[in-house]
Amino acid sequence: MYLETITSPADIKSYTVAQRTMLAQEMRDALLKRASIHGGHFGPDFGIIEAVIALHTVFDSPTDKIIYDVSHQCYPHKMLTGRVEAYINEAQYDEVSGYTNPEESPHDFFNVGHTSTSISLASGLAKARDLAGRRENIIALIGDGSMSGGEALEGLNVVGEMETNFIIVFNDNGHSIAENHGGMYRTFKELRETNGTAEDNLFRAMGLDYRYVADGNDCEALIAAFSAVKNSTKPVVVHIVTQKGKGYQFAEEDPETWHYRMPFDIETGALKHPYTDPYQEATKDFLKEQAKTNPNFVFLAAGTMGGIGLSPKDRAELGNQYVDVGIAEEHAVAMASGLARGGARPIFGTYSTFFQRVYDQMAQDVAVNNSPAVFLSVGASIYYMNDVTHLGFFDIPIFANIPNLVFLAPASLDEYMAVLRWSVEQTRHPVMIRMPVGGYEESPYPVRTDYSDLNKYQVVQEGADVALIGAGNFAALAGAAAAQLEAEGIKATVINPIFLSGLDTALLDRLKEKHRLILTLEDGILDGGFGQKIAAYYGMDTQIRVRNYGLSKEFHDRYSASELAREYHLTAEQIVADTLFALKG
Amino acid sequence: MYLETITSPADIKSYTVAQRTMLAQEMRDALLKRASIHGGHFGPDFGIIEAVIALHTVFDSPTDKIIYDVSHQCYPHKMLTGRVEAYINEAQYDEVSGYTNPEESPHDFFNVGHTSTSISLASGLAKARDLAGRRENIIALIGDGSMSGGEALEGLNVVGEMETNFIIVFNDNGHSIAENHGGMYRTFKELRETNGTAEDNLFRAMGLDYRYVADGNDCEALIAAFSAVKNSTKPVVVHIVTQKGKGYQFAEEDPETWHYRMPFDIETGALKHPYTDPYQEATKDFLKEQAKTNPNFVFLAAGTMGGIGLSPKDRAELGNQYVDVGIAEEHAVAMASGLARGGARPIFGTYSTFFQRVYDQMAQDVAVNNSPAVFLSVGASIYYMNDVTHLGFFDIPIFANIPNLVFLAPASLDEYMAVLRWSVEQTRHPVMIRMPVGGYEESPYPVRTDYSDLNKYQVVQEGADVALIGAGNFAALAGAAAAQLEAEGIKATVINPIFLSGLDTALLDRLKEKHRLILTLEDGILDGGFGQKIAAYYGMDTQIRVRNYGLSKEFHDRYSASELAREYHLTAEQIVADTLFALKG
Repeated sequence: MYLETITSPADIKSYTVAQRTMLAQEMRDALLKRASIHGGHFGPDFGIIEAVIALHTVFDSPTDKIIYDVSHQCYPHKMLTGRVEAYINEAQYDEVSGYTNPEESPHDFFNVGHTSTSISLASGLAKARDLAGRRENIIALIGDGSMSGGEALEGLNVVGEMETNFIIVFNDNGHSIAENHGGMYRTFKELRETNGTAEDNLFRAMGLDYRYVADGNDCEALIAAFSAVKNSTKPVVVHIVTQKGKGYQFAEEDPETWHYRMPFDIETGALKHPYTDPYQEATKDFLKEQAKTNPNFVFLAAGTMGGIGLSPKDRAELGNQYVDVGIAEEHAVAMASGLARGGARPIFGTYSTFFQRVYDQMAQDVAVNNSPAVFLSVGASIYYMNDVTHLGFFDIPIFANIPNLVFLAPASLDEYMAVLRWSVEQTRHPVMIRMPVGGYEESPYPVRTDYSDLNKYQVVQEGADVALIGAGNFAALAGAAAAQLEAEGIKATVINPIFLSGLDTALLDRLKEKHRLILTLEDGILDGGFGQKIAAYYGMDTQIRVRNYGLSKEFHDRYSASELAREYHLTAEQIVADTLFALKG
Repeated sequence: MYLETITSPADIKSYTVAQRTMLAQEMRDALLKRASIHGGHFGPDFGIIEAVIALHTVFDSPTDKIIYDVSHQCYPHKMLTGRVEAYINEAQYDEVSGYTNPEESPHDFFNVGHTSTSISLASGLAKARDLAGRRENIIALIGDGSMSGGEALEGLNVVGEMETNFIIVFNDNGHSIAENHGGMYRTFKELRETNGTAEDNLFRAMGLDYRYVADGNDCEALIAAFSAVKNSTKPVVVHIVTQKGKGYQFAEEDPETWHYRMPFDIETGALKHPYTDPYQEATKDFLKEQAKTNPNFVFLAAGTMGGIGLSPKDRAELGNQYVDVGIAEEHAVAMASGLARGGARPIFGTYSTFFQRVYDQMAQDVAVNNSPAVFLSVGASIYYMNDVTHLGFFDIPIFANIPNLVFLAPASLDEYMAVLRWSVEQTRHPVMIRMPVGGYEESPYPVRTDYSDLNKYQVVQEGADVALIGAGNFAALAGAAAAQLEAEGIKATVINPIFLSGLDTALLDRLKEKHRLILTLEDGILDGGFGQKIAAYYGMDTQIRVRNYGLSKEFHDRYSASELAREYHLTAEQIVADTLFALKG
């Protein structure tokens, strides 16, 4: 084994062609075993192995700086930069994150996980280098899927004017997470078909020099190409064509399924723990039904399918009522506004963490215009993705505080479907919906069909003394805490607000009559969130005390959700204990 | 006069060449007079007159739909679509907004004012049309300055794949607000120099068809070009070259100064009410001093100079320590993170309303990485731009709730300069600063030089019973209210928090001893803001009442700031009256 002896890139610099070939194979074998047991990004890493070997052969990391876009393709880089044990030793698999991480190694420069940032981040490193009078190489490695994002395109334009060393390795495997969408992909294809000589060339049009490597899995060709641009004094793009998932037949044949994969059986490719999410399944059915019954209905995706997991077959079924704009959330939101203004009924769905990219589009393109588009946010919960770059629980301060936007947090599958249907059928408001994570197994009340009486909360149970207002995913937690309080002799009022974007002031006023303690529970950070609005509403009232449950304003990385929940007293037992104590006080 | 007879575009469709020429002249004359008296956008409107006449001659608005990017060039359009009185009758100048506005006319489709959105918005209209089986033309008119923005570039890519009617009029006047920056502008220049035939062509590289009109102020050439693409069934770009400010010598010669102009003397071009802002002036001096004393200091702009008004001479003085990335805020923020990571000391400055575009870049590229970059936000106040598309007072919920980001609101010129200097010199935190609007004329306390003790508030005056916590621009308002309270026999405590992003819990706890009413004042919306954090902090305390002063979560358009302030009780008199009443209660 070569792999296990590598402690830094210096170890591979004098490798022979044969040694590099063996190293690449060892890396693939290790990645395959690890992925099958641990899960993780698959296709991006299998495709980039030779390029990473070539980069670390030609350049001198970390003096020369390699910035990985999204960095879901950083596993081979980590294997060559002192972290190989986390890839070959099962007991150490968890010792590295899934993304570049400066806390792990001086060879990593940024924690990244959102797409299309590498060129912009690297441009700052290049300018800092120039100001300091240094001369190292700055390399941004970016995939074709990421190139459709606005930040990357802005970066190309800015870098196109920098008269300095700046190397972009454009990793073209012909795929985004799903298939690529957009006009640039036609001209990239032309470049591939003409050995890089086609006239229409996005990079040259942005003012950059351009080189082409037909086989981006040929380590020797890559070494030649990288050597040719090393120490260049002008910005240059090296377009390399790689095969996503290379070396594992299932991944080569179905790159979308194998972009990211949970633990699987190596022989069959089958998931070890197959899982279907009832919210996803119901959403898919709803979208198909809408498309059939309303010719003006359209679902927008931005590369990711929004966690709804629409398969290629589902997408084909939706036909021209499905639009994937590529990784371009800003465009998707503005397009949704245009669709609504033009009389169509759009839903744009993506993950909560990616909705962070569109505050201004939601505020300006949508909310100022009061365009009745629907936005479906997936994974807005502490019980979802737990990488620091993919947290979904910052959305309440962002989207509950935009005027005109109705932000809804349903609490069960039934309520979610009712809310979704109402949102698409009404044409008065832009609506954002948090697809539940968890929630009530069964709704404890008949769900409404009409939500046009804005900010009307749902009283789940009438009680006295204590009221628990549990929003969305935490409505069920409020219910569970109330049940335990009842066992202690306290019949609490339980409320599911449904609306995160406004207060039911009539109800809040009424609560004053019989209650002295209000608890709010939200699945997100407290700062700027839902509960603070309630606390502020009762700010001048000396009879009512308000306690907010949720997370503090902090980043967390690869946390245990149950530990985090305990830390913030987000369990029924802790809430009950707190309440009994408060009532005594 | 032709102009005054025009009530809809139908009136000009059968005009002769001579009539169109005279109409264009009448429009310029009217715009010049209005601008000299009323102020407004200048260069963009003077350059686009012929194109707008041609568009309304060829296309049938509002069935055919013209979407203006930024829409600061919509004045000629408004003149031809039933709103001419607002341009020729001084008493009616204020009857139209400065941007497209669906409430004014069915010929306007969106309220817009931020750049780079037209293609994306229009793509939604096009898709809605296709779903409904209609066939009208959809036209997006976008300037070269706006083309550097990520949303526009995402839009080009998406539209490049749409096999349908979609017409982009690319208005190339060779200028952004300042000069253009980025590699694409070199290839646009090549297109201009080769009559549109140069090989490097951004639009073709994005999959669109392309046409070129060398003189975009030649109405007849434009009519021919637009007629040729009318009802086209493929997306096409019509690249027209216009002269910014055409027809007024001062504007032609200095397009940056004349992009937007306050009222001026027509003969000399001089401003009627010249004004210098002490914060701007001090900032400029500071930037130049930093650049001289620290070779690693760099100021980033995104097309707008960030309201700091750095003149071309100032920029030349800053040399390579000044970077304008064009209208590309996302890139600017990520680049700032890269600069900080690379050891440079960057400040990125822009308007508060444009910072809305970068929540995710601030959170991911900067805050997750804790990159010590500095962000200077201009116009975060109700006392600043008052168009609904340019409001600057939504920033506290956005940026005060991102972990790691230190968000500061200084309250006087001295404090602002101290905060700015500390931010640039420290390397532990990303910092955003609200450049004051108004504030104390003179600081009532010696300002700190060191702000590294995070969330340590400034006690301005010690008192009892009532504490006023007035943030940033409203610190002086808190002081004024306290002075009036003292005349009523109440010596209140006055606090300037300085930090918007965290609580001084030690101080808040200490206040409990002698106070029973806490007032918070912030120059922004209350929802998700600063005061609600204070209210929530005291939520379980029955001795303390908290009242939050600020704006409700609403959009306002062309409001009177003094009326808005009265509506929300943001005057010392009202605060005192409220307080006296509350103390009795």
